[in-house]
Amino acid sequence: MSAHPFDAAISLQAQGDGVFQGRTSAPYANFIGPYGGITAAQCLQSVLQHPQRLGEPVAFTINFAAAVADGTFLLRARPARTNRSTQHWIVEMLQGDEVVATATALTAVRRPTWGGHEAHMPEAPRPEEIKRTPRHGVAWLERYDMRFLLGMIPRDWDGGGASESLSRLWVRDEPPRPLDFASLAALCDVFFPRLWLRRARQTPLGTVSMTIYFHATADELQATGTGYLLAQARGQGFGGGYFDHAAQLWSEGGSLLATTHQVMYYKE
Amino acid sequence: MSAHPFDAAISLQAQGDGVFQGRTSAPYANFIGPYGGITAAQCLQSVLQHPQRLGEPVAFTINFAAAVADGTFLLRARPARTNRSTQHWIVEMLQGDEVVATATALTAVRRPTWGGHEAHMPEAPRPEEIKRTPRHGVAWLERYDMRFLLGMIPRDWDGGGASESLSRLWVRDEPPRPLDFASLAALCDVFFPRLWLRRARQTPLGTVSMTIYFHATADELQATGTGYLLAQARGQGFGGGYFDHAAQLWSEGGSLLATTHQVMYYKE
Repeated sequence: MSAHPFDAAISLQAQGDGVFQGRTSAPYANFIGPYGGITAAQCLQSVLQHPQRLGEPVAFTINFAAAVADGTFLLRARPARTNRSTQHWIVEMLQGDEVVATATALTAVRRPTWGGHEAHMPEAPRPEEIKRTPRHGVAWLERYDMRFLLGMIPRDWDGGGASESLSRLWVRDEPPRPLDFASLAALCDVFFPRLWLRRARQTPLGTVSMTIYFHATADELQATGTGYLLAQARGQGFGGGYFDHAAQLWSEGGSLLATTHQVMYYKE
Repeated sequence: MSAHPFDAAISLQAQGDGVFQGRTSAPYANFIGPYGGITAAQCLQSVLQHPQRLGEPVAFTINFAAAVADGTFLLRARPARTNRSTQHWIVEMLQGDEVVATATALTAVRRPTWGGHEAHMPEAPRPEEIKRTPRHGVAWLERYDMRFLLGMIPRDWDGGGASESLSRLWVRDEPPRPLDFASLAALCDVFFPRLWLRRARQTPLGTVSMTIYFHATADELQATGTGYLLAQARGQGFGGGYFDHAAQLWSEGGSLLATTHQVMYYKE
């Protein structure tokens, strides 16, 4: 039995001293370089696999510093500060002597407290009632089963555009794979660029920074199994070559799993 | 004439090699250690003052790793990657041999492009029509003129709480000071904890990570002068000892200046 393509993609070889070697993965290729979500998952995985790791991810920020070239890369993960129940990480992804991504992470031993999520899952038909949205062109799109409810990519690239860029979709790994922190991190980058909805033009662009806050424990993620997630993103500011969006991901049962934000550059 | 307390607080002495020395500032003291916003501004300032800096801040993430003790600190700012028009920074704040904060920043030479902010400023009465909201107890509260429109701190700490934690206020430096990237970064942490609105209990808590996306150039910030900003924050997920909020800040004229998110730990 061969491994799931996601597990193959995030497989890292420990080189000692917090250094790990990985390799880009053809099944997660994007137009230029890999899908950003897989790069995020690889960076997070270097923390998850680190022998000194304390607790589970709570916050994670990745900065995409350069296109990742096909082939091997090194990840250097360092606990900058370890407290009693929290730990702060600095991660660098390198190819040759060049930094291609930087990341920071907060891991923590979570304790039960009062809770009550405020970002509620919007009402939506069940994923089984929605047809899979066909998406092709680059490999990574085939790695996700996406079922759009709202805000699909423009049908006509006629420069018409819309005044709002809210998208909502059901999504899961294809083939299905039980959810964990690494795959949830990858799913946080699943949204196509909000600028495409606003402008209906295929402007060159790319994510430069993404932050994720995790709202579930490993056990809670495992309990969601291979169910679909409801993912929603909305643009905020667009101008001077950069725009951002704010997004949320819920389990099929309606539990908030992650909130995430990112900023993309664009050319015109 | 003495310097504005904010300028005194972010004053850094270059030690060479991207290392700067600063000092905590009594006018920005919080319950324990300094106001997080001033620590954020100091970290960003080490990038702004760095002789190799390219462009203006676009994205900034700070991780609060430990309480900052009263006294001096060192900031070590390093350009991890410099491209043609973008630069990725890693910053560490140290006291003795201990890391007390980490940060990453993206600076970029912005170019004029299509623009159109989607996060619109909500309708609100002008700041002059609203009385200043008295807030006391710790020094940093006196450094801001806050005029709450919505979602003020609970009057009665009776455990009643609310189902939503939306706050909206006009805010500016006190005394007034022309806006720049450092002061805007500090203003992004001005929101009191969303948990207080939800629970009406003074639970021990603190910010562990904050991300800011800047949507204005230095010139646009300067043009806002000493006007009030409309600042709005709303909680998202609360559980397992951590909660987050998403926030936006607009100029008095209604232009989106920054979007920001943060995650706080809490004890019960």
